[in-house]
Amino acid sequence: MGQLLRVQNFMVSSDGFGSGEGQSLERPFGHADPAQLAAWAGATAHWPGRTDGGGTMGLDDYFTRDFANNIGAEIMGRNKFGPQRGPWEDHEWQGWWGDVPPFHTPVFVLTHHPRPSFTLDDTTFHFLEATPAEALERARQAADGKDVRLGGGVATVRAFLDADLVDTLHVALAPVELGRGERLWDSPDDLLDRFHLEKVPSPSSGVVHHIYWRR
Amino acid sequence: MGQLLRVQNFMVSSDGFGSGEGQSLERPFGHADPAQLAAWAGATAHWPGRTDGGGTMGLDDYFTRDFANNIGAEIMGRNKFGPQRGPWEDHEWQGWWGDVPPFHTPVFVLTHHPRPSFTLDDTTFHFLEATPAEALERARQAADGKDVRLGGGVATVRAFLDADLVDTLHVALAPVELGRGERLWDSPDDLLDRFHLEKVPSPSSGVVHHIYWRR
Repeated sequence: MGQLLRVQNFMVSSDGFGSGEGQSLERPFGHADPAQLAAWAGATAHWPGRTDGGGTMGLDDYFTRDFANNIGAEIMGRNKFGPQRGPWEDHEWQGWWGDVPPFHTPVFVLTHHPRPSFTLDDTTFHFLEATPAEALERARQAADGKDVRLGGGVATVRAFLDADLVDTLHVALAPVELGRGERLWDSPDDLLDRFHLEKVPSPSSGVVHHIYWRR
Repeated sequence: MGQLLRVQNFMVSSDGFGSGEGQSLERPFGHADPAQLAAWAGATAHWPGRTDGGGTMGLDDYFTRDFANNIGAEIMGRNKFGPQRGPWEDHEWQGWWGDVPPFHTPVFVLTHHPRPSFTLDDTTFHFLEATPAEALERARQAADGKDVRLGGGVATVRAFLDADLVDTLHVALAPVELGRGERLWDSPDDLLDRFHLEKVPSPSSGVVHHIYWRR
């Protein structure tokens, strides 16, 4: 089926916001509490941040363990990579994820201010000023035949949807309202002209998994 | 979390039968029609038998694409491997799966009548006379740190459940009654003393996914 572009485990409030207002170093999701949006995932055995060997292995875990399944590269927007805007003042910032980022593949960061690539553990970050189509071509070449994950944030997912480049999209709607912030959609049904949609309520976490794939 | 023993995509009728009565070369599932039990999986994009590039990518596909995810070996019973019983008359039979079996790992076939190992494509079949615990130990060694899949059939899954060796179990209950055959359980709730259970209805196929993991 070729190399798909997949949005995996994208977390959105019930009113459609993927992030709150006012991102900063201290609050990567602005006024939103990422622990609320991610509670369903953090409870699972395969959540990348989990180190204690516990966690659930029900439906929600199928989603967290699919995060890296057959993924060979990620594309993300600069606002997922960090809170800085405009030209880099220095290159000290290496992302939010510490010495062992959860990607384990090449990552392409879209930015109007490219900087040199660097490697942390088995993740290499590249910085590209490129259209969505150009970035996808680069990521596919790097993915060694595997799929490419589109990591967000909201503006980046919307740009790739607008360019009609997304093949599958998994959005986890958390039972929390944000009221304002970065809006993914007005309604989950906005995409039905181009995508199939299945809505699957988690039996335990209160999240409703929205699974889209291209018609 | 160590190397798990996982039952993946095990297909059962709504009345609890994993296979019909009277297995033969012509009818691997006896009087049951495997196309009915497997219809949900065959419709998905990641069903191993699919070659046309189509298929759905909704909830059911998460299960078919998890089939090989982090699996390093399979254990199966002899009745999954073939219709013969008793001593081998010859070694011509090499399984139901043709030249490219869907396993792509070492496979350990439990039998009272061992025979030499052989390789088809990237699957090697080994034949073991062993207890469930011994077989699991061998499979773990071969799995290179990954999990082991317990492939069935019914008697084999039950033997490993009786020995309390199963860590996770995914059973897809198809909307079909068989009436007789190889029974997995009297009720899906039989396992609740030792396992968590989530029941997740597929939005499109009529199957109810039963996801168990050890308490």
